Amino acid sequence: MATDLPVLLAAVSLLSGLHMGYIARRVGWSRMKHKIMPPVVTGHPEFERTFRAQQNCVEFYPIFLMTLWIAGLFCNEELAAIGGIVYIVAREMYFVGYSTSTKKRLPGFSLQLVALIILAVMAASGILHAILDKYLDINLLSRFW
Amino acid sequence: MATDLPVLLAAVSLLSGLHMGYIARRVGWSRMKHKIMPPVVTGHPEFERTFRAQQNCVEFYPIFLMTLWIAGLFCNEELAAIGGIVYIVAREMYFVGYSTSTKKRLPGFSLQLVALIILAVMAASGILHAILDKYLDINLLSRFW
Amino acid sequence: MATDLPVLLAAVSLLSGLHMGYIARRVGWSRMKHKIMPPVVTGHPEFERTFRAQQNCVEFYPIFLMTLWIAGLFCNEELAAIGGIVYIVAREMYFVGYSTSTKKRLPGFSLQLVALIILAVMAASGILHAILDKYLDINLLSRFW
Repeated sequence: MATDLPVLLAAVSLLSGLHMGYIARRVGWSRMKHKIMPPVVTGHPEFERTFRAQQNCVEFYPIFLMTLWIAGLFCNEELAAIGGIVYIVAREMYFVGYSTSTKKRLPGFSLQLVALIILAVMAASGILHAILDKYLDINLLSRFW
Repeated sequence: MATDLPVLLAAVSLLSGLHMGYIARRVGWSRMKHKIMPPVVTGHPEFERTFRAQQNCVEFYPIFLMTLWIAGLFCNEELAAIGGIVYIVAREMYFVGYSTSTKKRLPGFSLQLVALIILAVMAASGILHAILDKYLDINLLSRFW
Repeated sequence: MATDLPVLLAAVSLLSGLHMGYIARRVGWSRMKHKIMPPVVTGHPEFERTFRAQQNCVEFYPIFLMTLWIAGLFCNEELAAIGGIVYIVAREMYFVGYSTSTKKRLPGFSLQLVALIILAVMAASGILHAILDKYLDINLLSRFW
């Protein structure tokens, strides 16, 4: 096996996938608790919040994975992995908070947004550097270092 | 073109994408059959089950793709591709079953979960091996082979 | 940093992720405009169309990203990037159109489908070529060129 594969990105990705599975599991438990049978997705307010919290995580999940990998491959793998861990923790805060009350979704949501923006800025700067280097033969770093 | 690209993972991924498109198409056909105009997503129970079946496939799709690629890149491409095929077949069973009745969603759901867990175990063992090798300079396989 | 990374695919992916974030933001603005508090997702028809438009974008997003990268890696990076840009523009047309009226979702939907089909055909032909080359030792291009 190639040892140059970005294993930290892979580890954070797999962890985030397990976390998404655990979120889906808790939506199922909330169904049972409030006796809301599939395919119904409305009923008790707590279930509706839990379900909506999961849906928001699902909406952002491919955006997160893509940004994590581009930040890691084009900028810095270790920093991207840390950003990814913060994102997962923030999503857990968001999911637990939202399940409790609509207002308590906000701290986790803000933190995951910060983590995602940092990853996106890393990705954008890495892409800019790579485009200048590859297509315009300009190496920003070599001018200074 | 590089011949060392993981073409089996690419083939299974593209196949799964076409399958997801076919699932979306059948939700559209169910809309027409029961005269449920967009953006409404409630009405006849059969449409509601078909729609909810698709939504569950959508929720799991990025988790599946990520796990498939990590299992294939870090563990074994051929076995991961087989796991991916099983996942697609299971998702078809799940979708057709759920469209028929709520209870008939279970065999397909269980099978896709087994396929996903096997891919996740392959991915986790591959990641563990790569981390030990890359960061701790420990090669598990060389001790035995 | 490796200069052989597919930076055009990364750039189009990041752009599409920012676009998906902007779509989510506008669903939030539509919530505020029509005073529909989370976790509720029904109410004013304009909000319901806007929300449903976003959900359709979310359903297709991982399929799009996967097809874009396989088309770019296995067939042609520049053409795949152009196809990706067309997809993003079409999704914007679709989202704005659907928010206005159910009927106005159609031109954007058709265009994104054309872009996705072109990317899928590129991906399929690239995969076919790579499988013949890698597993059957047949090089289609060398017969003619």
